[in-house]
Amino acid sequence: MFKAIVGASTLQDALDSVSVLVDECKIRLNEEDLSIRAVDPANVGMVDLTLDAAAFESYEADGGVIGVNLAKLEDFVGMASGDQLVELELDEETRKLNIRMDGLSSTLALIDPDSIRQEPDIPDLDLSAEIVLEGAQLDRGIKAADMVSDHVRLRVDADAEAFHIEAEGDTDDVDFHLDADDLIALTPGAADSLFSLDYLKDMNKAIPKDAEVTIELGEEFPVKIHYAVAEGQGNVTYMLAPRIQSD
Amino acid sequence: MFKAIVGASTLQDALDSVSVLVDECKIRLNEEDLSIRAVDPANVGMVDLTLDAAAFESYEADGGVIGVNLAKLEDFVGMASGDQLVELELDEETRKLNIRMDGLSSTLALIDPDSIRQEPDIPDLDLSAEIVLEGAQLDRGIKAADMVSDHVRLRVDADAEAFHIEAEGDTDDVDFHLDADDLIALTPGAADSLFSLDYLKDMNKAIPKDAEVTIELGEEFPVKIHYAVAEGQGNVTYMLAPRIQSD
Amino acid sequence: MFKAIVGASTLQDALDSVSVLVDECKIRLNEEDLSIRAVDPANVGMVDLTLDAAAFESYEADGGVIGVNLAKLEDFVGMASGDQLVELELDEETRKLNIRMDGLSSTLALIDPDSIRQEPDIPDLDLSAEIVLEGAQLDRGIKAADMVSDHVRLRVDADAEAFHIEAEGDTDDVDFHLDADDLIALTPGAADSLFSLDYLKDMNKAIPKDAEVTIELGEEFPVKIHYAVAEGQGNVTYMLAPRIQSD
Repeated sequence: MFKAIVGASTLQDALDSVSVLVDECKIRLNEEDLSIRAVDPANVGMVDLTLDAAAFESYEADGGVIGVNLAKLEDFVGMASGDQLVELELDEETRKLNIRMDGLSSTLALIDPDSIRQEPDIPDLDLSAEIVLEGAQLDRGIKAADMVSDHVRLRVDADAEAFHIEAEGDTDDVDFHLDADDLIALTPGAADSLFSLDYLKDMNKAIPKDAEVTIELGEEFPVKIHYAVAEGQGNVTYMLAPRIQSD
Repeated sequence: MFKAIVGASTLQDALDSVSVLVDECKIRLNEEDLSIRAVDPANVGMVDLTLDAAAFESYEADGGVIGVNLAKLEDFVGMASGDQLVELELDEETRKLNIRMDGLSSTLALIDPDSIRQEPDIPDLDLSAEIVLEGAQLDRGIKAADMVSDHVRLRVDADAEAFHIEAEGDTDDVDFHLDADDLIALTPGAADSLFSLDYLKDMNKAIPKDAEVTIELGEEFPVKIHYAVAEGQGNVTYMLAPRIQSD
Repeated sequence: MFKAIVGASTLQDALDSVSVLVDECKIRLNEEDLSIRAVDPANVGMVDLTLDAAAFESYEADGGVIGVNLAKLEDFVGMASGDQLVELELDEETRKLNIRMDGLSSTLALIDPDSIRQEPDIPDLDLSAEIVLEGAQLDRGIKAADMVSDHVRLRVDADAEAFHIEAEGDTDDVDFHLDADDLIALTPGAADSLFSLDYLKDMNKAIPKDAEVTIELGEEFPVKIHYAVAEGQGNVTYMLAPRIQSD
């Protein structure tokens, strides 16, 4: 059983965070929240989305799992304007999702959850540094790195209390750096890892420019990037595996 | 003889209604109005445009017929800004159309009208239902249908006094429905026909979002869609042949 | 030695004027100004850009020459917003250009100036007519000509004191004309030459719509087009070779 009513943009923003990484996913319709965990085909980038029942106008679920084509679901939800309400209801018999909004009723065929890549376990990591910054700052650093390379180094200079987004191209380099003053918060620690820009660019697409983004970073370790959605009643966590640094 | 002065956007909007269906057309320069009738190469969609003499700042014509390349004519007229006046004058000798606006004189070679597909007869049809709605509503229904299929069912539910734009895809369905309250007017009747979305999408491109659009609909019959242009001093009628419904 | 600080949009506008013609260029870091001269590979269009030391917040140079990839340099400068300051510093040892702005330090590898096409000599020409008009007017004339042809005739009608931008297509013609009243200034003279539209369109892309543009024109002679940049503390001159008019 699943029946819920939610603001169109709340749902859209949440789905965006997943669709930048995968085309299909399982959605867990838990009693207390709706949640999605997914990993890209290369097993490099993961996303963990939770949308609390409180993020919905109304929410009833009993723990089922459905499989969806995200592009189609986003198309359907996208027919609503930002603040319009969208009603979702699972038809258990036909295994279809009914999507209703003012004047429009649509039916989306679901995908057998067993045919979808297994949900990843997002490991607990003891990452020594934590950087809190605005989505717009992360965006600027990623754009700068993208001018010269296809990978990027995220690094905390613990002495200078600064966060660096650096890229080395074949001939050109960029170093985007934010001091403690520029950041919302910084917990310095040993933190220096290299990542694929393609994945970071995809994740960055979904991160709102005005979001408060927390980056947890270690030494040649995966990075965790999280931010709140649905005005704090939901959360997105990305995890991205590092690239091996060769000298 | 043909010489006329008209607001650029009035002319552009009128020409748009035809150019979504055909590349070339005959323009009839009647004494009382300028008119165009055209049918697409597959004989599925027709358009009938009339622009009254009153829609022009000045208008003189004596019943001639010219053939034009619509994209070129629209390019030329498009050099004027919205409220700028455009002067059109037929040079009978060279068979060219002189197009003048502030600072710019251009000459458009005409096409031999005999080389252009014959103008269709738009039949009088006794269609039992009539729906009057806003262009923006039709647009929304067509966009919704386009998510799941390449054809669309237009249907009046006479009992519920509602108009439906429905589409059935291989796996997904949409039903966009407008009650009597949502519509500007509704004359219920037996009305249920299937149409190609490609044609409706083309016609929809030309229909202003704020236009009052009248749809005449029957049972497996062509649909007629009409709306006013030039602030009521002109009229566009589309007719679209139905697709045969297979069970 | 070269070290300078300049507003991002001042530098960007200046570089744009060159990058519409060539991919790489030499930049002369003179004591009193920064200057670029370049010619396109076909030797048809030339540009001569001067940016006075006064156009910079601070400027120190001693006459060196560097070679740059313009697209890369513009990408780097483009990371700054319009009124943000950009600091440029030449690292003589590594032959790299350090580009710094708020939060972002980047390093651009330079190109050996000897590997770049030789700078053209922009000849002094005694062109008999001079037309001064707004960038937006030139833009409109070029857009009109582009509808019908790939070359354009620039012509002064000395008797009527008017400037014409004319194009003859295979079947259609346009004549964009500006009277003395429409122009900022006109020095009539024998002036009638044919040019490639592709080059004029490229130059037009860089010319601000609100710039006061001076066109010097002769009879089957190159045209010179110049306008001020950096609020008058810089200057761009284009020279474009004529096409031979065949009858």
